[in-house]
Amino acid sequence: MSANPITPNIPFDEDGVHHGFLRLPYSRDDSAWGSVMIPIAVVQNGEGPTALLTGGNHGDEYEGPVALQDLALTLSPGEISGRVIIVPAFNYPAFCAGSRTSPIDKGNMNRSFPGRPDGTVTEKIAHYFDTVLIPMADIVLDFHSGGKTLDFVPFASAHVLDDQNQQDACVAAVRAFNAPYTAIMLEIDNVGMYDTAVEQQGKVFVTTELGGGGTATARSIAIARKGVRNVLRHAGIMAGDITLEPTVSLDMPDGDCFVFSEGEGMIEPVIDLGEKVSKGDVVARVWATGKTGVAPVEYRAKRSGILMARHFPGLIKSGDCLSVVATVV
Amino acid sequence: MSANPITPNIPFDEDGVHHGFLRLPYSRDDSAWGSVMIPIAVVQNGEGPTALLTGGNHGDEYEGPVALQDLALTLSPGEISGRVIIVPAFNYPAFCAGSRTSPIDKGNMNRSFPGRPDGTVTEKIAHYFDTVLIPMADIVLDFHSGGKTLDFVPFASAHVLDDQNQQDACVAAVRAFNAPYTAIMLEIDNVGMYDTAVEQQGKVFVTTELGGGGTATARSIAIARKGVRNVLRHAGIMAGDITLEPTVSLDMPDGDCFVFSEGEGMIEPVIDLGEKVSKGDVVARVWATGKTGVAPVEYRAKRSGILMARHFPGLIKSGDCLSVVATVV
Amino acid sequence: MSANPITPNIPFDEDGVHHGFLRLPYSRDDSAWGSVMIPIAVVQNGEGPTALLTGGNHGDEYEGPVALQDLALTLSPGEISGRVIIVPAFNYPAFCAGSRTSPIDKGNMNRSFPGRPDGTVTEKIAHYFDTVLIPMADIVLDFHSGGKTLDFVPFASAHVLDDQNQQDACVAAVRAFNAPYTAIMLEIDNVGMYDTAVEQQGKVFVTTELGGGGTATARSIAIARKGVRNVLRHAGIMAGDITLEPTVSLDMPDGDCFVFSEGEGMIEPVIDLGEKVSKGDVVARVWATGKTGVAPVEYRAKRSGILMARHFPGLIKSGDCLSVVATVV
Amino acid sequence: MSANPITPNIPFDEDGVHHGFLRLPYSRDDSAWGSVMIPIAVVQNGEGPTALLTGGNHGDEYEGPVALQDLALTLSPGEISGRVIIVPAFNYPAFCAGSRTSPIDKGNMNRSFPGRPDGTVTEKIAHYFDTVLIPMADIVLDFHSGGKTLDFVPFASAHVLDDQNQQDACVAAVRAFNAPYTAIMLEIDNVGMYDTAVEQQGKVFVTTELGGGGTATARSIAIARKGVRNVLRHAGIMAGDITLEPTVSLDMPDGDCFVFSEGEGMIEPVIDLGEKVSKGDVVARVWATGKTGVAPVEYRAKRSGILMARHFPGLIKSGDCLSVVATVV
Amino acid sequence: MSANPITPNIPFDEDGVHHGFLRLPYSRDDSAWGSVMIPIAVVQNGEGPTALLTGGNHGDEYEGPVALQDLALTLSPGEISGRVIIVPAFNYPAFCAGSRTSPIDKGNMNRSFPGRPDGTVTEKIAHYFDTVLIPMADIVLDFHSGGKTLDFVPFASAHVLDDQNQQDACVAAVRAFNAPYTAIMLEIDNVGMYDTAVEQQGKVFVTTELGGGGTATARSIAIARKGVRNVLRHAGIMAGDITLEPTVSLDMPDGDCFVFSEGEGMIEPVIDLGEKVSKGDVVARVWATGKTGVAPVEYRAKRSGILMARHFPGLIKSGDCLSVVATVV
Amino acid sequence: MSANPITPNIPFDEDGVHHGFLRLPYSRDDSAWGSVMIPIAVVQNGEGPTALLTGGNHGDEYEGPVALQDLALTLSPGEISGRVIIVPAFNYPAFCAGSRTSPIDKGNMNRSFPGRPDGTVTEKIAHYFDTVLIPMADIVLDFHSGGKTLDFVPFASAHVLDDQNQQDACVAAVRAFNAPYTAIMLEIDNVGMYDTAVEQQGKVFVTTELGGGGTATARSIAIARKGVRNVLRHAGIMAGDITLEPTVSLDMPDGDCFVFSEGEGMIEPVIDLGEKVSKGDVVARVWATGKTGVAPVEYRAKRSGILMARHFPGLIKSGDCLSVVATVV
Repeated sequence: MSANPITPNIPFDEDGVHHGFLRLPYSRDDSAWGSVMIPIAVVQNGEGPTALLTGGNHGDEYEGPVALQDLALTLSPGEISGRVIIVPAFNYPAFCAGSRTSPIDKGNMNRSFPGRPDGTVTEKIAHYFDTVLIPMADIVLDFHSGGKTLDFVPFASAHVLDDQNQQDACVAAVRAFNAPYTAIMLEIDNVGMYDTAVEQQGKVFVTTELGGGGTATARSIAIARKGVRNVLRHAGIMAGDITLEPTVSLDMPDGDCFVFSEGEGMIEPVIDLGEKVSKGDVVARVWATGKTGVAPVEYRAKRSGILMARHFPGLIKSGDCLSVVATVV
Repeated sequence: MSANPITPNIPFDEDGVHHGFLRLPYSRDDSAWGSVMIPIAVVQNGEGPTALLTGGNHGDEYEGPVALQDLALTLSPGEISGRVIIVPAFNYPAFCAGSRTSPIDKGNMNRSFPGRPDGTVTEKIAHYFDTVLIPMADIVLDFHSGGKTLDFVPFASAHVLDDQNQQDACVAAVRAFNAPYTAIMLEIDNVGMYDTAVEQQGKVFVTTELGGGGTATARSIAIARKGVRNVLRHAGIMAGDITLEPTVSLDMPDGDCFVFSEGEGMIEPVIDLGEKVSKGDVVARVWATGKTGVAPVEYRAKRSGILMARHFPGLIKSGDCLSVVATVV
Repeated sequence: MSANPITPNIPFDEDGVHHGFLRLPYSRDDSAWGSVMIPIAVVQNGEGPTALLTGGNHGDEYEGPVALQDLALTLSPGEISGRVIIVPAFNYPAFCAGSRTSPIDKGNMNRSFPGRPDGTVTEKIAHYFDTVLIPMADIVLDFHSGGKTLDFVPFASAHVLDDQNQQDACVAAVRAFNAPYTAIMLEIDNVGMYDTAVEQQGKVFVTTELGGGGTATARSIAIARKGVRNVLRHAGIMAGDITLEPTVSLDMPDGDCFVFSEGEGMIEPVIDLGEKVSKGDVVARVWATGKTGVAPVEYRAKRSGILMARHFPGLIKSGDCLSVVATVV
Repeated sequence: MSANPITPNIPFDEDGVHHGFLRLPYSRDDSAWGSVMIPIAVVQNGEGPTALLTGGNHGDEYEGPVALQDLALTLSPGEISGRVIIVPAFNYPAFCAGSRTSPIDKGNMNRSFPGRPDGTVTEKIAHYFDTVLIPMADIVLDFHSGGKTLDFVPFASAHVLDDQNQQDACVAAVRAFNAPYTAIMLEIDNVGMYDTAVEQQGKVFVTTELGGGGTATARSIAIARKGVRNVLRHAGIMAGDITLEPTVSLDMPDGDCFVFSEGEGMIEPVIDLGEKVSKGDVVARVWATGKTGVAPVEYRAKRSGILMARHFPGLIKSGDCLSVVATVV
Repeated sequence: MSANPITPNIPFDEDGVHHGFLRLPYSRDDSAWGSVMIPIAVVQNGEGPTALLTGGNHGDEYEGPVALQDLALTLSPGEISGRVIIVPAFNYPAFCAGSRTSPIDKGNMNRSFPGRPDGTVTEKIAHYFDTVLIPMADIVLDFHSGGKTLDFVPFASAHVLDDQNQQDACVAAVRAFNAPYTAIMLEIDNVGMYDTAVEQQGKVFVTTELGGGGTATARSIAIARKGVRNVLRHAGIMAGDITLEPTVSLDMPDGDCFVFSEGEGMIEPVIDLGEKVSKGDVVARVWATGKTGVAPVEYRAKRSGILMARHFPGLIKSGDCLSVVATVV
Repeated sequence: MSANPITPNIPFDEDGVHHGFLRLPYSRDDSAWGSVMIPIAVVQNGEGPTALLTGGNHGDEYEGPVALQDLALTLSPGEISGRVIIVPAFNYPAFCAGSRTSPIDKGNMNRSFPGRPDGTVTEKIAHYFDTVLIPMADIVLDFHSGGKTLDFVPFASAHVLDDQNQQDACVAAVRAFNAPYTAIMLEIDNVGMYDTAVEQQGKVFVTTELGGGGTATARSIAIARKGVRNVLRHAGIMAGDITLEPTVSLDMPDGDCFVFSEGEGMIEPVIDLGEKVSKGDVVARVWATGKTGVAPVEYRAKRSGILMARHFPGLIKSGDCLSVVATVV
């Protein structure tokens, strides 16, 4: 297999703060000898663990990129022992376009692992992380939110893993992140996920969903900012105490948590995010867009719990996930 | 001037409930003899005033369309005296596309009045309202929200008008709508607005901004649903008492309320919607997207008040309105 | 008003055959000093009337362009007395794109008259015809078919005109064209039509609909080829006898001839073109595309007659004309 | 290899009529947790063979989808012994777009077999058919027509197969379908075809071409409707006699049947579909679009027979198949 | 007529250097309250004439924008007496897109004068220049080059004007600019040009064509840089001597200077820019793109002179200007 | 592996001149039975070596296609001993679009080898060359230029190869081509290149870069025309002497030759192509496009030599190659 074509223009093993790029050659009609330039910062000080921090895995999610740009600007080597690798915009072409997937190849970064060195742009980036960056790390934090089409109550989560020790380490890091909600989930379909790639290399992994709609708020950014520092402290990279507030534990035990639309139309949410819902309650109605006088289709919860996620845009298509109900543990 | 080509397929002057279309012939590459079919419902019972109710003036705003689809489905002639004309999706092509403006001609309905019978699709619709529907009405309620790119605290508003009696009537109707916030505004640039067209015909006019982001919530829809019924009661079309809750009065006295971005980047909101802000406070930061290690540009409030509106998407371009600060009266 | 910018590169007043272009300067991103080059042929021999022959008024209709390319190639001056001006592709940008309207400005040529010398590309072409070519002509023949989205039984037609003498002259020319069907129609909405522009200048005018679907057949082209020569003979430009075959006379007395779809879906035609239909008969069904097990919507004829036209593509949208029933005179 | 991600929401093994969806998760920019929802109906009654019936393999062909929507709506379990699986829109995204291939990935369903569970949307659908639906079936009927760019005389066909018994069974079923034309063809390039996937699993397979141009007629739909019921009767699933009318047997022995255009232009068909043609006859002319006075390029038949298929649109490009001549057996 | 909606955020009448924007509100789908922000710099010192300097009238021409960005950065008030208004990117949306015309409305700035305050974005900018900026100026310099589709020998030019005094003043300023070539031209079709708008207000006007192909070179930028300073010195705004080098005087007396392509294909230039050509010489050949073995079409000069301009891209369409031959005076 | 689907319609082994096509079946929405038709000419006379000559490997480079169209038209069998296979537009879909890569699949032909018979259109073409045409050849000449986004001093080049004999043969052929500049390069990243595919089959290979910007000049075409005939003479296929002029030998020893932009903006070249540059010199500045008064970013040479290549368009993005400095040997 050929070598990954990405080259960094900063060192990974020198003390201090380095701001630079991962340069991926990308020949195209509007630049024969062009490149994708993924911003990266590395802060290092002496011996210690390595944290790999990523935002913009999906390009329309902003809590991670804001918190990581802020961290890259403000974190000084004197505050740490070890190394912090910061990539605020993992799928950089998607991030520039403000879209979930890459405008170059429609690649969903979180379904492109382990990637290929001779594949699409998204696959090449995935392969570089899989073969170069993940191996450098002890702990990995990947920020997500709902993006332009989903909205979530803010939570951090770990996965159920075969290796109980690894799972325990992940759960401890998630609890250190300390989002308002916390979820330990069994990922049924983990094919191609960054999460899986990291976990398979035996690393401690934390992921989040901190809001959505393709925006961020002062409140949701504060969660991200506190969480990342908490995780660095938990990992022993930063000194100082972890700030902890109450968190609600959630579970999504099976497919009955999900309600899918079976037609298209305009959504009327009946339950808002974070509100309680009982099995059989109407969670949303879908109205016709082309006629008046037609009764809406009602969608009902298949379990009791709280509304954890919902389709964000006002219009919906057949097959879109309308809402997710999580049980409170 | 030629006649407006729109024809309704339901009567405007018969008692009962009629659901139908305003049909606008529209010849195009994918349908030589096609039409734009704007859904309309007319509910009439005996004598009384006429209310004209519109949603979807901008196609990505949902509180109005949901409340009006609901009203069109549930309002029975026995509940009213007079006539209610309901158009849930005023700029219907934009509504179908989920976009502010029409995908056919990029027409912004609220800047297209008085329209033209031989103009673009948007101008033809505007002309039909200006010459046929507005003249039928005594009171006009037009629903707005922020759409995909703005977010507002929920308010209803009337304009400062030359005719004090007309202004008083509008303000009374706005107070009857009873949104959580209420604003009486001087519209400086009213060229082409539906508002202006209605007011110039001497009608009572109520407009709103009930949220934004291209979505709606159970809470924001409840405001719309209550408001429209309150207005119908206020107008004497529906019987029954008006439900009133506390409202906060806002004012936007001059251009210093608006903060515009002078560059592009990723927004970090520092103040959330509805929160207090003092003159000189940072309301938002704009971060570089292509580099790490660059300090963000900070934008500060030019007056004190509350954050009334903000740019919604996570990315911003030069010239976009970043935030609006309103004074509390 | 400024002068029309189109210049021909062939003479209009010299005996012989001249093939050339109407050159319309058109500055654009991919050619700063580019032009639209509309092919034109002029065949002249001595004194006599002038015929102006056009195809491609809509760019996806082919009987006219084929018959006129053939005529331009084969007509020799010795066969005529007078002048024949041949423009096989009236809306040339649309013709090149295979679309009804111009890809440059979405201009529907047949709704762009009288045009403007400083307007869009389509309006400039219309203005050139209105001010230069139509005035040269004694008789005008404009070929149409249904294009990609409509299909017709093949007919030639004249309009009901205020000037009975002019109408009689038009009807005589239409009868000379001798399509399988013949229609004398009252055009209710004639705003912007080429037909109207020609008729208002007092010229004899013949128009046709010879098939559709965005294609042509050996049979439909034969109708066009025979018709154009018959018209030239009728006008006294070509010598020889007119070939006449039986024709069926049709009428479309009012709006009940037209059936419009009030929803979207997949069409099932129940009656084929040219078949008899009685008032109340189902002419077509529209099936859901996103579900099985849903009964189709049935559309019924509002008068008796024959099926004269139908929507051609397999899918239909709300507001599309589904079918046209004409009465047989 | 990973599991196919498609899940049906109806059972395949319960008596009665079930209407539902094959749900294929499809994350994209406009719906992070979206799905492709392929309509499916299953009608079952006791023991008996299984027929798998598909339309919309190419998304712009309508005889199959109409006949199958009709069958799914009207077939009652009491009429059958066994099971009928109906998928009216095989390549559902293409069908919704009215295009041959999928707008998602440009996938041509009939060149995507055996598919991949982790491939494109089209490949995932193909893989589901290959591994789940085809194995359930005893007999498979796949409807085709010419689509928007080809037109055919209506025929049903079977392939020449290595296994003579299987071929005989296929031919018998094709004869039961009883289209106006019948063809037994040697498929030279069968890579990726659904036909091949079905035949390789030893199933009885019937395919058709019932018209084209991206539309359907009452006449062509009647052929499909009669054919599918005939096939179900032939398979012993429905009771009752097969309706048989005369059919013409066709053969396409080699590449000389096909005429390709070697330039671009406007087509003049000289022979219409179903008409006789002799070797050396001009079947079509291709005219220049940008000039008058240029002789057309003539294309001639390389064998005698009837015109079985033709390019449908009025314009043609270099390399397009202009016409197909079949020999009458 | 309504007021122009553009507002500057810097003063036009204060001494010193001011960098800012002309802000034009522009509501659109991706920013409801967005603006076009045209960069502008004003350098003023005491009394004296005003020069208005513009680049980017067409968005794909770079000598002007580079020279003006440089001037805006480096010009200090102490160097001047009077005022210099610098707009490096006149049609700013086009400049950002790297295209001749605006991506918003396809507006060609140089054909949009006098503009409209309620027109398209391009028309609003033109109207602002016509009513606000041109009236402030004594001398106007507008930079052009050939853009992506034309290439020129570098020249400055003035127009033949009705007012001989004004023409003399313009010619003197053009000579001060001192490009390698100088042309005094009779503009036949001046409708909508910025040139005309400036000249009609009685101002001294200088325009240029300094190269092309959508790029700039060190050499062509040097011409622009020297020229703008020479013009400011000539106008008495900057002190110091004008640098003069030899220039070749050109004339384009009539339409025979222009050679247009009458077909499409690949260009083979036979004469390069600035080379001598005699009447009847082949200036270029156009080769077929879809076949080998076809002789190219040869285009010949209709007068003698030098090759002053040519079509730049390797492919050409019918109607494109292939080359311009100018006579040397 | 399946067979390559491309078929030629001319023989490769008959004396004389044959003009024809490589026909690649390509089913798509606008032509179900369409093909890509790549023009090819074969000139053969008796025994002798075979030369394979290609242009249009990238579709926006014109020196090769013009020189090869000319050769295909003018080369007579009597002039040669052996065989000349001429493909003026290797990536024919890209060539028709005037773009570097194929509009069908975004395939960069020079990164698609060895191709796949069942891959994308570009991969199928590559596979045909790899398995059919290259094996026929003794010597291969592939023309390149910079295309629309790069510009080069004109050079021919050979690669450093493992087999010294093969390298010597290639260098000798490159010297025979005799461009103004000559380069012997070590290709570090040769994955997928046509060059590599040819060299791995042991053939003599010559490649060139003869200019750029998406155009050609009389001068650059003359280099191509002379070069191809020189190479045919050198190979012993044509008789006659080789025309030799002085050439400058260049070397690009390592990555320091390349300067990449680390931001976006407008380029100001400071050094022009072919000019001398010393290490540390500013080669270009990049100016902001959205503001005035901001100092440009300066990019400096990392070695001394001459400017061998540069980014061509006036705007540049982060990661684009800004300039290449080569050392003169």
